[in-house]
Amino acid sequence: MVTPNPDRRSERARRAILDAALELCRTDTYAGLTMEGIAKSAGVGKQTLYRWWPSKAAILLEAIEERAANTLEFPDTGDLAADLHTQLHALVRTVTDPLFAAYTKGLIAAAQSDPTISEALLKALIRPRVQLCIDRLTKAQHAGEIRPEVDLPTVVELLYGPVYYRLLLHTAPVTTTQVNTTLNLVLTAIRP
Amino acid sequence: MVTPNPDRRSERARRAILDAALELCRTDTYAGLTMEGIAKSAGVGKQTLYRWWPSKAAILLEAIEERAANTLEFPDTGDLAADLHTQLHALVRTVTDPLFAAYTKGLIAAAQSDPTISEALLKALIRPRVQLCIDRLTKAQHAGEIRPEVDLPTVVELLYGPVYYRLLLHTAPVTTTQVNTTLNLVLTAIRP
Repeated sequence: MVTPNPDRRSERARRAILDAALELCRTDTYAGLTMEGIAKSAGVGKQTLYRWWPSKAAILLEAIEERAANTLEFPDTGDLAADLHTQLHALVRTVTDPLFAAYTKGLIAAAQSDPTISEALLKALIRPRVQLCIDRLTKAQHAGEIRPEVDLPTVVELLYGPVYYRLLLHTAPVTTTQVNTTLNLVLTAIRP
Repeated sequence: MVTPNPDRRSERARRAILDAALELCRTDTYAGLTMEGIAKSAGVGKQTLYRWWPSKAAILLEAIEERAANTLEFPDTGDLAADLHTQLHALVRTVTDPLFAAYTKGLIAAAQSDPTISEALLKALIRPRVQLCIDRLTKAQHAGEIRPEVDLPTVVELLYGPVYYRLLLHTAPVTTTQVNTTLNLVLTAIRP
């Protein structure tokens, strides 16, 4: 006789909950998302959700963190311009996905008044990516592709700041044209 | 006998309401702000508020628009680098003011799920400033201070994007050091 494995059962429930939370973001806004709605959609009791996560923000962050892990690598072909181009185009694909837009903008909005969400976003999503970009830029600076006096964290902000500016202020849609133009100017600024 | 001027009385009430809304942002978050709280603090009935504005966002936007009008001029001394420096330092002063941080971040957060607030923010605050910056950059481009092929809206995003990136993602405090470093790299990118 085979005893059901409780760990595997839990993992299935966990995945169902994370998937349900992301799926609900397609049809609802972040503000409209509730613990009750996620539990119902995942087919589990609300007490199961609260046993594992304190809030809808915590569930969404874990769901996003898992999906985002797949895109964590920063390309390194030895050609800085090509690698930044690849990475920025991947970012455009991510932020123009309607699902991403719904949950990420909801979380960033919630982060304005909730420091816990803000810190979780930074820790799970933003800082690891900034660090990978800085690592790639550092390698390029050592290889002589970037002037030695250029401050690399500023370069990260010049590359990504304009994308979040459009995304959060809604001045214009984020496009590949935007990041191409931005990248060309930034490369002009940092090259020896 | 002098008849009280109803226009003047209305203007006094209007100002009291706008001031109360801004003042409440000092002690409360945007999320905690209510029409009732603003009315009570301004010493007027809630029906007076609803007669003039549909929501707390509309009140705050009008209050911000009036205050921001004072800082609308873009300097033009004939020296592009000096003028951008002046303008970016003014921006740093504004966004590091705790009162500004409370209400603007609250409005930008609300704009993520409410297109009316988003459009009002763009119309009242962002587009007029972007246009003034583009006007100044256009003049500089005609004067030969910027290469003719440089796309000026992209330059605006390179200058302001990094500030909003720090402000809204909370990666680091906005500082004059940040905008100085950003400005130096952007000038390197756009100069002939």
